[in-house]
Order: sequence, then C-alpha cells, then structure tokens
Amino acid sequence: MEINEKIIRLLSEVKRKKPLVHNITNYVTVNDCANIILAIGGSPVMADAVEEVEDMISIASALVINIGTLNNRTVAAMILAGKKANEKGIPVVLDPVGVGATTFRKQVALKLIREINFSVIRGNMAEIKVLSGIEALSKGVDSEESLNDGKQVAKDLARALKTVVAITGVIDYISDGEKVISINNGHEILTKVTGTGCMTTCLIGVYAGVTKDYITAATAGIMTMGIAGEKAFAELTKTEGSGSFKVLLMDNIYNFSGDDIIKIGRANEL
Amino acid sequence: MEINEKIIRLLSEVKRKKPLVHNITNYVTVNDCANIILAIGGSPVMADAVEEVEDMISIASALVINIGTLNNRTVAAMILAGKKANEKGIPVVLDPVGVGATTFRKQVALKLIREINFSVIRGNMAEIKVLSGIEALSKGVDSEESLNDGKQVAKDLARALKTVVAITGVIDYISDGEKVISINNGHEILTKVTGTGCMTTCLIGVYAGVTKDYITAATAGIMTMGIAGEKAFAELTKTEGSGSFKVLLMDNIYNFSGDDIIKIGRANEL
Amino acid sequence: MEINEKIIRLLSEVKRKKPLVHNITNYVTVNDCANIILAIGGSPVMADAVEEVEDMISIASALVINIGTLNNRTVAAMILAGKKANEKGIPVVLDPVGVGATTFRKQVALKLIREINFSVIRGNMAEIKVLSGIEALSKGVDSEESLNDGKQVAKDLARALKTVVAITGVIDYISDGEKVISINNGHEILTKVTGTGCMTTCLIGVYAGVTKDYITAATAGIMTMGIAGEKAFAELTKTEGSGSFKVLLMDNIYNFSGDDIIKIGRANEL
Repeated sequence: MEINEKIIRLLSEVKRKKPLVHNITNYVTVNDCANIILAIGGSPVMADAVEEVEDMISIASALVINIGTLNNRTVAAMILAGKKANEKGIPVVLDPVGVGATTFRKQVALKLIREINFSVIRGNMAEIKVLSGIEALSKGVDSEESLNDGKQVAKDLARALKTVVAITGVIDYISDGEKVISINNGHEILTKVTGTGCMTTCLIGVYAGVTKDYITAATAGIMTMGIAGEKAFAELTKTEGSGSFKVLLMDNIYNFSGDDIIKIGRANEL
Repeated sequence: MEINEKIIRLLSEVKRKKPLVHNITNYVTVNDCANIILAIGGSPVMADAVEEVEDMISIASALVINIGTLNNRTVAAMILAGKKANEKGIPVVLDPVGVGATTFRKQVALKLIREINFSVIRGNMAEIKVLSGIEALSKGVDSEESLNDGKQVAKDLARALKTVVAITGVIDYISDGEKVISINNGHEILTKVTGTGCMTTCLIGVYAGVTKDYITAATAGIMTMGIAGEKAFAELTKTEGSGSFKVLLMDNIYNFSGDDIIKIGRANEL
Repeated sequence: MEINEKIIRLLSEVKRKKPLVHNITNYVTVNDCANIILAIGGSPVMADAVEEVEDMISIASALVINIGTLNNRTVAAMILAGKKANEKGIPVVLDPVGVGATTFRKQVALKLIREINFSVIRGNMAEIKVLSGIEALSKGVDSEESLNDGKQVAKDLARALKTVVAITGVIDYISDGEKVISINNGHEILTKVTGTGCMTTCLIGVYAGVTKDYITAATAGIMTMGIAGEKAFAELTKTEGSGSFKVLLMDNIYNFSGDDIIKIGRANEL
C-alpha cells in the first residue's frame, strides 16, 4: 500500500475511534496540544501527578512525553506512566524538547530512554543529534559526517534504540532503522509559533493510538502538520501574522481530510 | 421574577462590580479561564501557593476550584483557600474535571466536598454521576434508573450535598435540591475546544461573585456559554474550524448582552 | 539620537540577532509570552527547574522573571537564575505581578530585589507603588504626594534601586533615576486580555537582549505593545471582541516595523 493511502486509512481510524491520548507535557504549549488532539479527532488528557498517571494511562490509547518544562515531580510521573504504558502495550512517544540546552535535560532524556521503550521519538535535527551523541544511547554509531545527513541520523538512532526516529525540519526524515521516509511539506512560519513541534508530536500520538505501524503514525502526524501549515500560510493575508496563522493552523487541522493528503502530501520512501 | 430577567440583572451587576474571581485551576485551560472572566466583565486572579491563597481569597468575591490537573501542592492550596472562603462567606464553585478517571481524583473530590461548603458544583453527566456514586457523599440516593435522568441526578446530589449542582450537556440541568432548571442552548462544537467546561465554571464563579442566589448564578454562567457558543458557531464559515470558533466564542462573551438572553436564552424551570 | 531612532535601531538588532530570552514565569500567560517573543523576532525559552536554570541562563541574552504564579520551587529557581545572570552580565527584567495582593508576593519581591540586580522593573502604578512603599527598598523616599505622580514614582524608585523602573498605564513612565520618558500609546482594551502586561515585560526582555541601554529597551518594549494595541483595536470590527483583539495584537507585533514607530510612536523625554 502506498504511504498516502496508509495515512488516509489512519485518519479515518482516528475519526472513528477518537483515541484518548495521555500527555505529560510542558506548561507552555499544553493548551495548544489539547486543542490539536481534539481538532484531529482524538481525545486529550493531561495529568502529571504520580498519584494518578498509572490509572490514567490504563484508559488511554497512547502516551506522549514532552520534556519542554521539567521538574523532579513530573520526571517521576513520566517514568511511572511510561513503564505502565509499556506493560500494557500502549505506545509511548517522546518529544525531547531542547535536550541540548542543559545537562539536566540530557540526563532526563537518557533516563527516560533507558527505562521506557518508546514507539516514536520526534525532535528537530539539533535535538536528535544530541541524543545520537550520547554515547550510552547510540554506542557511537555516528561519525561527524553522518551527523549532517538527516536521513542517516534518523536511521542510525532508530536502529540503535529499536524505535522510530523522526527528525522535523525543512525536509523531515522518519526511520524505523530499516527504511527511511522523507516529507517535503510545511512552511517556515511554523517556527514563528511556539509549540508547533509539540503539537506535531501530539498528532503522532493520536495516530499511534490507532495502529501498531508506528513509522506510518509518525509520518501521518508530521504530514498532517506540514499540510495544515502550508494551507494556513496560503490563507494568510498580507497584514496578518503569527496570531492569525495559529488560528488558521488549528482550523486546517480541524478540517484535515484525505483529499488534502492526496493533493498536497509529499512523502517518499528513500 | 422570570429567569431571563434575573440573569440580565446579574449580568449588569457583573459589569458594575467587576468581581475578582480567584482560581485554583489546571495549567491546560488557565489562560482561557482568565480571558473569559475578563471578557464577561470580571477580574481574574490565579494563585495556588499555600503561602498566599488565604490572603488572595480575602480580597476576592468568589473562588473557583478546578481539579483538571492536580498535585499534592495544589490540593493543599485548594483546601486552605476553600476553608478561608467559607469562613469569609465567599462563594466557592467546584469543577470536578475527569473525576471518574482516577482513584486520586475521586479521593481529592471527596476530600474537597467534605472539607469545603461549595455554592455550586458543575460537571458533565459522567462527572456528576461519579460524585453521586460515592457512597460517602450521596448516601446511596441514586438508583440505576435515576442515574440516567439528568434532572433527577442533579436534584438528588444537590439535596444530599446542600448545594447547587449543575450538569452540562446537550440539555443542561441545574438544581438546588428543590427546583430544577433546564437550559437548551449551546452547540456540539463546544466539545471540540478544550476548556469550554472549565470556562463555564469560571462564568458561574463570576456571577456567584455578585449574588447569593447561586442557582441563578449557575444558570447564568451556563446560559452565557451556551448562547455565545451558538452565536460563534453561526458566525463560522465553512473553511473555518475549532481555531476560529474559539476566537469567536471569546468575542461573543465579550459582547454578551441582555438582548442575547432575551432573544436566544432557552431556560425553563421544570 | 532621538528616541524613535534609537528604538528603530534596537528593533533591527532584534531581527538580526534573534536574542534568546529565558523566562521564569507564571503558567497563566506563558504561551502568549513565548509567542510574542517569537513574533517580535526573539527566541523564547521557558525553564524553571533549579537543576537547569543556571545552564539555561548561560546561553541566553536576557532573563525575565515574572511572579504571576509563585511557589517555593520556582522562587528558588528565580534566585539561582538571577544571580547567575548577574554574574554573567546578562540583563534581568522583573515583572512584580500583583505584588500588593499578598504578603508572600511582597516577601518574594523584596527577596528578589535584594539578591538580584535588575536591569528593568516593569509594573502598573499599583505594583510599583507597593515596591516604593517597602521601607527596606525605597528608604522612604516617597511622600503621599509623589505617589500620585507616575513620573516621580518611577524616578524615585529607579534611583533608590539603581535600575530602570517602568510604570505602564494610560500614560507610561520610564526612568533610570535621572531622566524620565513618557509614552502615550496603547488602548484600554489591552486590559481586557490577560497577560498584556507580562507580554510587555517580555518585549522589554527581548530588546534588553541586544543593548546595554536599558531605558531605551524598556521604552521600546512598552511602545511596541502600545502601538500594536492601537493598531489592533483600529482593525477590530464592531462584532469582534477580546478574542479577535488578541489575535490582531500578535499579528501587529509580528509585522511591527520602524514605520510604525515613526508614524505612531509618541514617546517624550520629560
């Protein structure tokens, strides 16, 4: 089956099953994350108390862990929820926000990846490179050269961690360690609204909630955001800016359809 | 006096007095909660440190407690603030968000209801049913049958807890244990934006800040959201979605008037 | 050089350097804060764990501390980050949100001002008056009379604290203890959207990230918000309200230009 067809099928599964996506996330973009999950057809829940995350994950179809704002209380909740999700066979998606910025983030990311089996890890090139550079994780597979090649970076880390790795940027690369898919959708203005990365990870979580084919789920989430971003930008008038763009982005996710995927989707298996 | 008239009177009191509403709430929808309180004419304050909630409540006209995201630190603040509000005769409104999802939420809701006298409790049918099903709270008033009848559920729980109970849904039911008011306003798209429930509870808090007639305050809050939701949906074009709807919803709260209540309000005493 | 010229120069520096602004802030308006920093051309980061704030500040061009929602965990992070910023010569901007509301806020503000050297403190008249009234801070410079005169209040506190003090209101006053600049931009509807004060402080943080001339940075931040507010209000139709205004405000920050400053900017040295 062709990539677009697979994504169209996942989208209709999302609309039918309304998967509950549990998020342990940052307080900066949490509202947008909840709204984008609703807009695509899922059902969001945000809970990060150690007293309840295990109960919450038990009724969820997917878990999204985002390290955008961390503290010791939420890190403990991430570990508990992630382990429970693994135990129950519920997919877990990681967004290693700003992992290169501080030692604490690197330590937390390392701990999470060691203790939890992730179905998908999505970050930008800088974030994924940092993970690749952690000796304990990547076992030194990456040469300086391969680190400038998104395709190779995604594939190597995916293989080392036995997961799907997605790098988003001008061109996105998604790999399960064997094949690599690239996507050429999106628009630069997406970088002018906070949380478009976090929201993309949430979309991946929604799709992962209705399939075991995680490379397609990751591709679907990233393409959905890319297409909605392109359409939203095209609708923007000259006097409008990032405020209107954010509203139009949500509108386009809300109205996202198989037709959009067929007409605008630009994914390729490399 | 007729219901609509009472609500119109409350609305003008809100515009005149600009009641300060103290919120101890979740971090998902907190920004929307603050903005809707401003839009209707109130003044929001959000504070949840145990060191300051008692000071804060002392200058407020109402307290809204929302359990959407909980942790031990904020639960302690809720108890402190709620008790202080009771002591000072300031109305306290509870939103038991997702109370059925985890044991922790049930325990916290039970603790809050035992230690604080609430003026209004607002939830959806599932949430209010969970509260009704806690033996320690409802003393087993509810039969399986009555649990499918919103009117009866609201009335029974209101009587058991000596408070006003409001159930929001396609039809809303508000009861003080004696009379029951139903509202037939709103639109399904309200469920596609996170926090419309939380925002409704905040509107109730604003109205409760200017009256002791809490059943009318609850009715006013729910009708305000319902009417604004209907109008916002009517203004939505075909290519717009949940992003634009949220903006229009806020606009319609901002411009909400007695005229809207007269023309569109559909409340009835049952 | 004239004020407008200086601000235009700062704006183009912001676009060129994209300063990274680290925020330790409240969870109510944090998303808007991140988006406005992006809209003007900066790069936001929000982190408040004691384990990482010192690392984070080391890569930042400015630090903004906002006490809108406080707890002991974040207060400790503020102190650590502020001291580190001082050590590294990175400007620190304070927003003493609601400092008069509780004893805790007053104590925290006092502690922050004692332990950290701020480059700019921005608040409304009520907040700045509270700081001026803390004997330990202002050494009693303020008479009852001067407290009703924004110009004098700003100047006296700036001198006492050896910093720039900015009071925002219908007329804004910014002083370094010697000269005082007033701005007559903005619109009342800015008070109907939560976080416009916090966002103004963030804009000051962005400008402070590209200059050592902090009185101009503060003037630039406040004028940017004022002009964008005026333009956004002018674009608002009769049926629109605070929801659309917030979107238009962000759009106008996104498109803010030297032309706006020349045509609409109304700053004067008093």
